[in-house]
Amino acid sequence: MSQPEILVTFARLKAFIAEAMTKLGLPEPDALTAATLMAQADLQGSDGHGVTRLPQYARRIKAGGFNVRPNIRVVREQASTALLNGDNGMGHLVMKRAAEIAIEKARTTGIAWVNSQFSNHAGPASLYASMPLDRDMIGLYFAVGNANQLPPWGGLDMLLSTNPIAAAIPAGAEQPIVLDMATTVAAYGKVKAKALRGETMPEGWMIDREGKPLIDPKRADEGMLLPLGGMEAGYKGYGLAIIIGLLAGTLGGAAMGRDVIDFNHDDDSVTNTGQAIAAINIAAFGDVVTFKASVDALVRDIRNSERMPGVNRISVPGERSHATREARRRDGIPIPPALMRGLAQVTDDLGTARLR
Amino acid sequence: MSQPEILVTFARLKAFIAEAMTKLGLPEPDALTAATLMAQADLQGSDGHGVTRLPQYARRIKAGGFNVRPNIRVVREQASTALLNGDNGMGHLVMKRAAEIAIEKARTTGIAWVNSQFSNHAGPASLYASMPLDRDMIGLYFAVGNANQLPPWGGLDMLLSTNPIAAAIPAGAEQPIVLDMATTVAAYGKVKAKALRGETMPEGWMIDREGKPLIDPKRADEGMLLPLGGMEAGYKGYGLAIIIGLLAGTLGGAAMGRDVIDFNHDDDSVTNTGQAIAAINIAAFGDVVTFKASVDALVRDIRNSERMPGVNRISVPGERSHATREARRRDGIPIPPALMRGLAQVTDDLGTARLR
Repeated sequence: MSQPEILVTFARLKAFIAEAMTKLGLPEPDALTAATLMAQADLQGSDGHGVTRLPQYARRIKAGGFNVRPNIRVVREQASTALLNGDNGMGHLVMKRAAEIAIEKARTTGIAWVNSQFSNHAGPASLYASMPLDRDMIGLYFAVGNANQLPPWGGLDMLLSTNPIAAAIPAGAEQPIVLDMATTVAAYGKVKAKALRGETMPEGWMIDREGKPLIDPKRADEGMLLPLGGMEAGYKGYGLAIIIGLLAGTLGGAAMGRDVIDFNHDDDSVTNTGQAIAAINIAAFGDVVTFKASVDALVRDIRNSERMPGVNRISVPGERSHATREARRRDGIPIPPALMRGLAQVTDDLGTARLR
Repeated sequence: MSQPEILVTFARLKAFIAEAMTKLGLPEPDALTAATLMAQADLQGSDGHGVTRLPQYARRIKAGGFNVRPNIRVVREQASTALLNGDNGMGHLVMKRAAEIAIEKARTTGIAWVNSQFSNHAGPASLYASMPLDRDMIGLYFAVGNANQLPPWGGLDMLLSTNPIAAAIPAGAEQPIVLDMATTVAAYGKVKAKALRGETMPEGWMIDREGKPLIDPKRADEGMLLPLGGMEAGYKGYGLAIIIGLLAGTLGGAAMGRDVIDFNHDDDSVTNTGQAIAAINIAAFGDVVTFKASVDALVRDIRNSERMPGVNRISVPGERSHATREARRRDGIPIPPALMRGLAQVTDDLGTARLR
């Protein structure tokens, strides 16, 4: 940990990922789309979902686990719904398309909901939930996680993933409210990030099969994530994980429950990942300016409300990501030494230039 | 506390509530609708949301706080959305109508979303989320709670309610999966029960105004409920409460944040309660029989999975309510003596027959 973190600009990181993706076989526009979304993940501080995934993605592409030239297509459609078959392409490409379809449909019908099937890991849920924002729409996003790390409440079998939910709400002068949460106390990406930084996890993130706290992220495979609510009310997080999995997976004919492939330990099976995105057109319910003013007022009421001793600032969901995005745009995106080494292996393999 | 609980049949309870509601001024069909939904709440074990609310509803009607002959009407509409003005009628009437509109629209467009404004307390969220089930649709329901009991994360001002979310998913041979949860760790009723029994609360239910765990339930009014996630991840429950409030309240021009009326301490102000319901037509995404078979398989995988020591059964959300419904349909609905006395006061006031 004595080596300094490298700082890279968003543009440099994006170009670096795009070059690797192109070399791995993606058509250039697709490589750029995936690279942009991955670099945006790093920019906003979703460190478990950005360039850190590149070595794994590269491994999977080489193993034939991703289709680098997918025929992403709508296979079912109604006025306000679509089912998008991702043809085992990268999830970023599938869910960007899904968001575009949802936005277009919601423009005329008020709301739209698009499910994916044969999609893949797509990075942070908030990226997709936020896509409807600049069309004055609310975005909702649900996903089946790409590995089962959660047993049913009271159980030991890993039948569920950390199935995340994200929601993005437009504001006026304030920043949009953006919630992005796994239905476990901690997301698995955060566990991986801890491992990469050589840190221990707080008690309450994971337990081992005896129910004892597990704090070494390198032993994550031996344990289970605790559902949101923890020991006291974990049945609620467990319930949310089931509902989100049914909405994002089962509804679209994608994997859920025992059918979920652990893509951290399997580089070549088709994951049949499912996600769902909804766009809600605010104008269908009332005046957009009035809505945004109400959101602004809520944000300010919360921010200016009385704080507990020792609390410097009260935030709304999305504020930290926004601040990180601003800071990293200004100062650069930090890449930890271990990740730099992993990326160097990828580029050395591909014969492309190292990140610097 | 020595008096036995009275047991009443569902039909008797429904008729009793309907008679009281009619006497209070509701048109007979509306009285029957409200009575049916309230008695259904008791039948499924949502004891805090059924006939126990009758004294409060009666008080509010007499104070002019409910409009007993509301003109419930759609004020905005698109192919897949509607905004329903409840004209300050009982929430049960408003949200049953909202569910009907959502189901009808989702039949042709695949999904529909209906917001209410100028609605009121409507009882258990699960009742409305479940309405699309027998049309082979998924139901989602969001509500702004009728009193603010939750401060922002790190704050002290009660700016939020325990805004509930409910979801209902059809199954085949198995019972539907029905989740209905508030966004706090524990309900206030559980705190009161601990106080009555002279027990302490587990850490994680409440905190005091310094943010320290509060475990003495007799000191409950010095503290606050913790949002879902507790000390470790309560910002997630806080985030959910905000998002649900924005979707159910702000989107439909209903009260949210500081505008929420505490209807437990205010009998006559218009609450402008907001709720939202979505119906998702499973047939828009795939074969309904296949979907239901997948849900059945998931339920059975979970039920038959390996249990932790001391756990007799692993359940899916909705199982306990279903079992309660079956048991009470067979044995009757228990009415505690204190509630019987409260109901007797209402009927004596109205000059109608007591419940027996």
